[in-house]
This record gives sequence, C-alpha cells and structure tokens, in this order.
Amino acid sequence: MTATMRIGMDIGGTKVEAIALDDDGNIAGHTRTVTVPGTDGILNTAEGIVAELARQTGRAPGDFASIGIGIPGQIDRAEGLVRHAYNIGIESLPLAQLLSERVGIPVTVDNDVTAAAIGAAHLMGLDGSVAYLNLGTGLAAGFVIDGHPLRGAQDVAGEIGHLAIDHLGRPCPCGQFGCLETVASGSALKRFWPGAGEHPGPSLLPAIAAGDAEAQAAFDNLVRGAANSVRLIVLTLDPTTIVIGGGLRQIGAPLFDAIARQLDEWSAQSPFLAPLGLSARVQYLDNDSPAAATGAALAAIR
Amino acid sequence: MTATMRIGMDIGGTKVEAIALDDDGNIAGHTRTVTVPGTDGILNTAEGIVAELARQTGRAPGDFASIGIGIPGQIDRAEGLVRHAYNIGIESLPLAQLLSERVGIPVTVDNDVTAAAIGAAHLMGLDGSVAYLNLGTGLAAGFVIDGHPLRGAQDVAGEIGHLAIDHLGRPCPCGQFGCLETVASGSALKRFWPGAGEHPGPSLLPAIAAGDAEAQAAFDNLVRGAANSVRLIVLTLDPTTIVIGGGLRQIGAPLFDAIARQLDEWSAQSPFLAPLGLSARVQYLDNDSPAAATGAALAAIR
Repeated sequence: MTATMRIGMDIGGTKVEAIALDDDGNIAGHTRTVTVPGTDGILNTAEGIVAELARQTGRAPGDFASIGIGIPGQIDRAEGLVRHAYNIGIESLPLAQLLSERVGIPVTVDNDVTAAAIGAAHLMGLDGSVAYLNLGTGLAAGFVIDGHPLRGAQDVAGEIGHLAIDHLGRPCPCGQFGCLETVASGSALKRFWPGAGEHPGPSLLPAIAAGDAEAQAAFDNLVRGAANSVRLIVLTLDPTTIVIGGGLRQIGAPLFDAIARQLDEWSAQSPFLAPLGLSARVQYLDNDSPAAATGAALAAIR
Repeated sequence: MTATMRIGMDIGGTKVEAIALDDDGNIAGHTRTVTVPGTDGILNTAEGIVAELARQTGRAPGDFASIGIGIPGQIDRAEGLVRHAYNIGIESLPLAQLLSERVGIPVTVDNDVTAAAIGAAHLMGLDGSVAYLNLGTGLAAGFVIDGHPLRGAQDVAGEIGHLAIDHLGRPCPCGQFGCLETVASGSALKRFWPGAGEHPGPSLLPAIAAGDAEAQAAFDNLVRGAANSVRLIVLTLDPTTIVIGGGLRQIGAPLFDAIARQLDEWSAQSPFLAPLGLSARVQYLDNDSPAAATGAALAAIR
C-alpha cells in the first residue's frame, strides 16, 4: 500500500454511492448504501463508507489522500458548505469541515451534476467538451470544457431546469412558469401525472401500454423537455457529446428513441440544425455507472 | 519601429472596422470603411486597410505580425474559410489564404461575435467569464471563459438566436418557429414591424412616442427576447458579466431600462432567480467600441 488512493461519494436523495479511485484513475473499491437524511445521518454514513473502502483497499481509513463529495443543493466549494439540500434533510451543513475533522482526510464538496459530468467524461473516455444532462428528480446539466469543469460565477452553470421556456407554462416551485423541470423530471411526473405513485419512471411505460392517456401525455412532455434541453445545450456550449443520465434514463430504449426522433424531426425541418447532428451527439450513461462518485473523486484534485 | 503590431478587422454587413494593436494591447491605429460585398470587394478593402494602418503606425504593410478577422457566416478556423456569409456576398471564400497571399502576413478568421466577446473583455477590463450578446441584424452570443474563447465542437457555441423558445412561434428562415432571433433582432423588426424601414432601430422610439402601437409591440418583443437571452446565458454558463452590443443597443437607455425591468420582475417572482443578480450582470458596449476588431486581433494569437 503505497499508491495514492482517493475517495469519491455521490450523496443522493435515496442512496449514497462511493468509490475508491487509484492513481491511474481505476476504481479500486465501490460501495452503495441508503441515504440517512440529516446532519448526523450524512456524517455517520460517510464515516462508515470511509471504513468500508479502507477495508476493500487494504489500508487504514486515514490513509486516503482526499474525499470528494458530489451532493445536491447549493454548494459553496471554497467553504465546503452545503445549503438548501432539502431532499437529504440539510438546511446548511459545513460538510467538508465536519467530515474532515472526523476522518482526518481533506474533504471537498461539489455540485452532484457537475461531478457526474466529470465522472462520465472520465469513465466513458470522452474527449473534447462534454455535457451531462441529468433526468432525475430534477433537471440540470453539468459541463466539462476541454477537461475543465464549468461551474460558473455563482455555481449555477447548467441550471437549465429553471429555464422558463416550455409552452405549457406550468408553475414551478422556483416561482417561475414553464420551467423545463416542470415537464422533464421525476418531480414533474409526480406532480402532473395522476398515476405516478412514488416511483413514476418505471411505471410510465406499463401505464402507456395499458392505455393510460395521461401517462402518454406525461411521456410526450418528458421527451419534448429532454430534446429541448439537448438542442439548448448544443446552441449554447456546442459540446462534442451530451451524456444523459439520472433515474429516468432507466426507462430505456423507448425514451432514447423518442428523444432521437424529436431531435431528428426538428433537424429535418431546419437546414440550420440539420448539419449539427443533434441526436448523434447524445449518449446514455450505463445504469450502474458510478459517474458522480468518480467525478467527485476527480474534482477533489482539480 | 521594433515592437510587434497586429491587425484586427471586423467585416460586417455595412462597414469594415479595423485596428492595429500593439504589444501592450493598446490600439495604435484605427480605420473604418464601407463594406464592398463579394470576394474582390472584401479582399481589396482588406488590402487597403493594411496599407492605411501601416501609414498610421509608421511601418511597411508587410511588417504586421498577424491579421485576425472577425466575420459573419460559418467559419472554418483551421482552414481559414468563410461560408454562407450572405449579407457580405460570400458563398464560400478561403479568406485567410487569399488575403495572406496578397499582403504576406499570416491571417486567421473567427466568428465575429466570438471576436467581439474577446475584444469586449479586453477593452472593458472584465475578469472571470464574459458573455457578449449581440443585438444586431441577428441575435447571437459569444463566450470567453476565464480568458479562453468558447467556440464549440462545430463552431455553433452561442447561436442562441435559433433557440425556438418564444411563445409567439414566428417562422424563422432557419426552418424553426419561435426562434429568439424572430423577436429580438434587427431582422425581426424589419420583418414584423410594418413601420420599420431600412434602419428600424433608430426609428423605434420616435414611432412609439408618436403612438404607433405596432412599434410598441415590436419594442416589447425585443425586450422580452433580450431578457430571455440574458436569463438563458446565466442559467447555462453563469458568466460574471454579460455585455450587450450590436446595432440595436444604440436605442439606448429606454431599451436598457426595459431589459433590466423585465429581469427584475422575473427575479422578484422567483426566490431561485433573485440571488443571481441577473440585471446587475448586464453591461452595455460603448457605441464606438471596436470590440470585434480588437478581439479578432487578439484571437489571432490564442
């Protein structure tokens, strides 16, 4: 045990995923556990993960070089502070400082979607510029421009879910109307599809097959919002690749095909869009890819 | 005459503006002339400009280190090629090669809006990330991220004028409907405001003052599209500053105030937008600023 080993964690609303990354960028340890919300829950879980990854990689818990954490909410990277991460029970938490005091390892925190962008670019071996589009509970994007994460002046780069541009004009909790997140997200399905239940993603296709017209409308809105996001990302950052991840990607091929069809339809109508290869730029993250955890480990050193 | 001196040119639909930039980034020569469309017109004009700037800076025409050209159309930087620049009479022109052969100086070509972003950041002394929003004949943006121009995988970064997100859904020559350019551009005023005439920008306010309801509607659409562009740029790239330039900015304070009011109104309705300081990020390019020419000179060395 001489090589440097780094930890990356992705703390999400339902699960925490973590990896140990060796010097060569290979995953040397991997663990996953349910999220326990609140300050104590998060800190105890993170401490337990450090111990588990130490066991997997044959070292003492204090022998990791760094811990990078991807987490939702409003992130202050300089202060290592997480705010307004309501779905994990956090109003304000100096996560970097408190966890670092517990485990004796430097800790950095990062936006979870930016971390996923960094990790997806690394794990999928993508060159050039990469956008990661998260179709999860919310809708947001993360960007890596020629190897450098783009976070923005106030850490809101990629917050495209709150672009108020959808023609349905649905109210958004953010106070605007017609946000992309109100049509293309898990929360949109829960709010606006009566048949959604707790896990709307997996039940959408069966409901459509059973003739639920509102499920079909919800699916069509999801497709339009996702395709709109892709077009928007190309006409702003023009990345080489757009990787779509997030829980809703698990709907699978019917969703991917419908998004590609929508993009191709727009392109067929527009000589301006046609040469841009919108649908050809889209790739999907593997269902089990620990992209955000991997990116968080990498972000700790960038 | 020992210091390195570089030329930057901004070839637009009506005029060509050019500067000579010294080693310290100061403007040492400046000239402006009308655009003569077509291959010969462009090349002869450019050659004349080199001679004029040589005269102004006391050197031989061949003694400039480089020529950078900002130009509309589809740019192939690697090949120095300009395509589809219809408003200057160019279908396809190997501008870098042909001009370089004539004057014996290395020539690079760049997107004119990207050049303006580079030049505005330099001339206005802006740190961090800068977006330049061009409210001209068309609508487009250029980005400089921490000193580096963002051009994109297919040189369409910043082509936000063709985001089909405006609720009026007006047809755009690009084949889509509702493009931002169909409401917030000089071409939009010409197409959709019956009283526009050849130079709609300067006549808009007098027409409103005279009670022209269609002029008022055109102005309101312009304001909405411009404000939408600002919000969009903040929620994608989150730049420190957004500089608005282009011919329509010459409408002046009533336009600037209306854009700020729209942004402030959206922010007042949204706790998410409020802390982002949308209107406070906007600055306006001075009417006589040679930003695109200056940026083109700088782009030749980046």
